[in-house]
Amino acid sequence: MFQIPRGTRDFPSEEMQKRRHTEEIIIETFELFGYREVQTPTFETLGLFTAKSGESIIEEIYSFKDKGGRDLALRPELTAPVMRFYVEKMQMNPKPLKLYYIGNCYRYDRPQKGRYREFKQVGCELIGANTPLAYAELIALAYTILRKIGLNHIELKIGNLNILSMIFRKIGLSKEQQKYIIPLIDKDRIDDLKSALQDFGLNEELYEKFLGFLEVKELNKIQEFLGAESEEEIKLMISVFKFLKNNFNIDGPILKVGIVRGLDYYNGIVFEIEAPSLGAEKQICGGGVYNLIKLFGGKDTPTSGFAIGFDRSIVALESEKNVFPELKLDVYVIPTNDDMINESLEIVLKLRKNGIKTDMDILGRSISKSMKYASSLNSRKVIIVGENEIKSRNVIIRDMKSGKQDIVKLDDIIKCIAN
Amino acid sequence: MFQIPRGTRDFPSEEMQKRRHTEEIIIETFELFGYREVQTPTFETLGLFTAKSGESIIEEIYSFKDKGGRDLALRPELTAPVMRFYVEKMQMNPKPLKLYYIGNCYRYDRPQKGRYREFKQVGCELIGANTPLAYAELIALAYTILRKIGLNHIELKIGNLNILSMIFRKIGLSKEQQKYIIPLIDKDRIDDLKSALQDFGLNEELYEKFLGFLEVKELNKIQEFLGAESEEEIKLMISVFKFLKNNFNIDGPILKVGIVRGLDYYNGIVFEIEAPSLGAEKQICGGGVYNLIKLFGGKDTPTSGFAIGFDRSIVALESEKNVFPELKLDVYVIPTNDDMINESLEIVLKLRKNGIKTDMDILGRSISKSMKYASSLNSRKVIIVGENEIKSRNVIIRDMKSGKQDIVKLDDIIKCIAN
Repeated sequence: MFQIPRGTRDFPSEEMQKRRHTEEIIIETFELFGYREVQTPTFETLGLFTAKSGESIIEEIYSFKDKGGRDLALRPELTAPVMRFYVEKMQMNPKPLKLYYIGNCYRYDRPQKGRYREFKQVGCELIGANTPLAYAELIALAYTILRKIGLNHIELKIGNLNILSMIFRKIGLSKEQQKYIIPLIDKDRIDDLKSALQDFGLNEELYEKFLGFLEVKELNKIQEFLGAESEEEIKLMISVFKFLKNNFNIDGPILKVGIVRGLDYYNGIVFEIEAPSLGAEKQICGGGVYNLIKLFGGKDTPTSGFAIGFDRSIVALESEKNVFPELKLDVYVIPTNDDMINESLEIVLKLRKNGIKTDMDILGRSISKSMKYASSLNSRKVIIVGENEIKSRNVIIRDMKSGKQDIVKLDDIIKCIAN
Repeated sequence: MFQIPRGTRDFPSEEMQKRRHTEEIIIETFELFGYREVQTPTFETLGLFTAKSGESIIEEIYSFKDKGGRDLALRPELTAPVMRFYVEKMQMNPKPLKLYYIGNCYRYDRPQKGRYREFKQVGCELIGANTPLAYAELIALAYTILRKIGLNHIELKIGNLNILSMIFRKIGLSKEQQKYIIPLIDKDRIDDLKSALQDFGLNEELYEKFLGFLEVKELNKIQEFLGAESEEEIKLMISVFKFLKNNFNIDGPILKVGIVRGLDYYNGIVFEIEAPSLGAEKQICGGGVYNLIKLFGGKDTPTSGFAIGFDRSIVALESEKNVFPELKLDVYVIPTNDDMINESLEIVLKLRKNGIKTDMDILGRSISKSMKYASSLNSRKVIIVGENEIKSRNVIIRDMKSGKQDIVKLDDIIKCIAN
């Protein structure tokens, strides 16, 4: 017996039903916002990912040589491939360019709860727009998608890496020191962060101030500290918050200066959306302003975007007890004997033509066995095609929920099923 | 600049529009027939594919070791993974089990027109049913899908590997000799086939007879030759053809004894659907009765299924000049100045809430630039939100096709756009 590879999953129909339903809402929402879908290959040249994330990424991804000796890698994320696509073939397209994507990604992680080696990401890139309105709409889109798929409890946090950099500089941290503490900020390891700042020789007042900024909820306190230098970024932030609250009706976006996104290529505004129902691994969306086009050899253009963890969003929906549409069949048709097959097939074809999901006994089983099978398929109705009824152009229709049976004219079947 | 890996493709939005549209019809049709979706990982243990197709398959696929030293392979097809899934987790499900799948597959082929290293397959497996009606419905499903996606010219050919084997035995070909000529039959290399049969020492009458069977259109001629032994299989074939023609209304299914499917694990009825518009590489669907469950360690159960080449189907649709839905936007909203942004956003949100695909100028561009951009997006309508009009609670709506402009009350926008 062969087994599924470690860290990957098979999806039975019940799961696929949930996933398709959720995916459809996501696609619909992207398109309502004027985004258009693109798709890239499952694997790319390895160099694309090391250029973006450094050589150390190799440890975390599936890389391999093809038979021509080329170094390839299963994509660990979709921003780099889409940006590669943009630089190769879309630079001349009218701007702004609004692209979305849905695709599986791969990481050679230690498998653990909610983390798989193959997982699905949905996301988008906004190319050629850098106004507060553009950023607000992008963030509103991420938030709207998560609300529309059915999540009731999500938290939106917005930061700004330019402001964080200014704070770093103001308190006198070297690039080296910044690099050391960024992961500590990212992981909320406040005690380790304190010791690090003490080791760097920061006086108590400064580092208390710094820790305070990680918690601060008002932009004006930061501007007081940073002065004129920060004016433009603060104005941008105020404007984005205003659009989100007043125009896009987003509940309580929270300022969080400590969002670092852990990635070198982000700059400017950044945001995260969390689903508290998930506990420790609660982040389900991350995004912001970044710069990859130049690194990939294209003409510098403002870009922003976000990615949503599809699998984690499904888990969040489940832990919020979201009601997904049931996996069901509309009608199961049972011929009572072989002579009834022609009449049954005629009914089946007519139902299907009318968009009604219909199955039929193809094994010549008894009525009781067929009923049991129809019930295992969660069929709404069963049509029994019997010799006596057919003589008077009737069939028996049974409602599987109520158990009620009716004799229905052949010509009235569609009408009767549609109710 | 990074490049896309050889033999793979990026899909721009125009292509994705076609592909999504076609995929939706396929999913809908599977579900109308009572099939349910399943999904398996992109890679499997290499052994799964060598067990099915022999060691030589390794030359044709992407195989690699993961960091734990496991031999993995990107799936070259989906039947083996779905059967592995069935044996591992679905053997106890009520039968018949009707499963469909859509997924990308990978082959290390020499890239050529219409053949890519990453390609998409859709298909299904019918597990636990072996009646003529079951097979007829399966074949009808494949045919219906291809007609429903828009193909007008397709040809359905049906064969039977049990009958072919009987013919082989009757004319006295050894297993060895069969193995040699099967690829020649598959590729229609009639001259090579003739020489081979002569080399095997077949007398002229016998090999002319054999070549005749590859062309024969009537089942009774075969039964005359094979006698009583073939009775059951011939009866099955007659029954399947009858269901297809009389009940499923399929145009002209053709008997083709020479279908070999080139695969060891097929037995019994087999079929192919061709799109003649594609020229030499015209096969777009293949399927039939096969046996993998036992090989994979499961309890023997009758199985049949088919796979459709998604990419080739798209090419066939294009060569038939199929009309796909246009990539378009419903409405583009233009604020004439920054003071109109709030009013514009209100309109945008209202339109989106009503399911209308809406975009808006987020860069503060001039009306003429915005109009040009809206036209590049193929927007049906443009709404111009100007100060004078807003004072009297009006906007200007321009129909982009006719160029006609109307002044419309704010409250009537939805009604006006819906028309």
